[in-house]
Amino acid sequence: MIFRQLFDAESFTYTYLIGDEQTGQAALIDPVIGKTNEYLVLLEQLRLTLMVVMDTHTHADHITALGALRDKTGCKTMLGQQAVATCVTDNFSAGDRILIGDLRLEVLYTPGHTNDSYSFYLLAGDQPMLFSGDTLLIRGTGRTDFQNGDARQQYHSLFNVLLKFPDRTLVYPGHDYKGWTVSTVGEEKAHNPRLQVTDEQAYVDLMGSLHLPNPAMMDVAVPANQACGVIGD
Amino acid sequence: MIFRQLFDAESFTYTYLIGDEQTGQAALIDPVIGKTNEYLVLLEQLRLTLMVVMDTHTHADHITALGALRDKTGCKTMLGQQAVATCVTDNFSAGDRILIGDLRLEVLYTPGHTNDSYSFYLLAGDQPMLFSGDTLLIRGTGRTDFQNGDARQQYHSLFNVLLKFPDRTLVYPGHDYKGWTVSTVGEEKAHNPRLQVTDEQAYVDLMGSLHLPNPAMMDVAVPANQACGVIGD
Repeated sequence: MIFRQLFDAESFTYTYLIGDEQTGQAALIDPVIGKTNEYLVLLEQLRLTLMVVMDTHTHADHITALGALRDKTGCKTMLGQQAVATCVTDNFSAGDRILIGDLRLEVLYTPGHTNDSYSFYLLAGDQPMLFSGDTLLIRGTGRTDFQNGDARQQYHSLFNVLLKFPDRTLVYPGHDYKGWTVSTVGEEKAHNPRLQVTDEQAYVDLMGSLHLPNPAMMDVAVPANQACGVIGD
Repeated sequence: MIFRQLFDAESFTYTYLIGDEQTGQAALIDPVIGKTNEYLVLLEQLRLTLMVVMDTHTHADHITALGALRDKTGCKTMLGQQAVATCVTDNFSAGDRILIGDLRLEVLYTPGHTNDSYSFYLLAGDQPMLFSGDTLLIRGTGRTDFQNGDARQQYHSLFNVLLKFPDRTLVYPGHDYKGWTVSTVGEEKAHNPRLQVTDEQAYVDLMGSLHLPNPAMMDVAVPANQACGVIGD
């Protein structure tokens, strides 16, 4: 497998490139529109063909490159079935498998940050990897106070879905604001302050007490992303 | 092995945490002073004891955490033998081996960006890894126009030292300004524009034509780093 974690310093977004060396097929998770040309250069240099791009959810803090990459490469574009965007070529839902050559991404429905939040699980050799979007962050979790967010659903997504994977599973989040690039399920169970609650109600109370300001780009990014980042879609 | 790549968004510096799971011993390469407390929290959470911190060279663009980490943990601090800093506890030179529990970092002298520029090679399982400082960057190389830099020496460091490692060797640089986190020796040989020169003189001419402005922090960072980042050292 060819694997690259790519960082957008404007929105602190992580984008993931997953390529299958045998077949030359590749996918991008959570690409950012301003980086579109850099992704295409990297894919070409790695001799990979972009087959599919997907967002873990409809983002509120950056504009997706789904539409731009589709227009430039003809790749499939995917969002979860709850997403409002009608511009994608395909939707995924819980239990689906997305094939990238011989690699297999398992689709996990993990609502809470938004109602269209998904995570992806990949077993690479004997190393389990979890692409956790904005559901599970490194020492944090995604806010649940807009875009049909729901702390009760997120509690379930965290404790009954993501944290059920083995402790050594690598956790690759959708963002990190302090410069950390990866964690593990075991580390997050032990040291993520939001995961030390005693029960669902305590988590709901914790998330309800945050009172965060809206993301600066929210009013632009959400409608843009509902059009796959391309005006006129 | 426990491995973490950490990013400082102010100076676009990558810091590397290398830990040996068997013995709990750890090292940090190129730590940034503003992140000192975060490193200590992460080390504690991963149950690692910091044994040694080293800089690949005397940095001009950020202030090192060598002195702060030494003061807080009692760890060894290391720079190359050419470094002016007398505050370090130890110096390394070409061919040395730095032990981190059962892990072994091989010390490579790679002058050119500065005259105290080193790289480190680590074989983790069957995966070779190169910590290339500011000598080899992803699709770039470190400038050679100050701090006793020398394009001729850097050509030798690149072509006769770093690029001699197997193509599949992972390259972890000291910085990246476009959000790329890792490369390989093979990728850099094929696609790094600075490495497409025909000979040493062409490389010297290329580096001589760059006319880069000095780093914003240079006048502060170099003297601070010659004191291991701690005023009064």
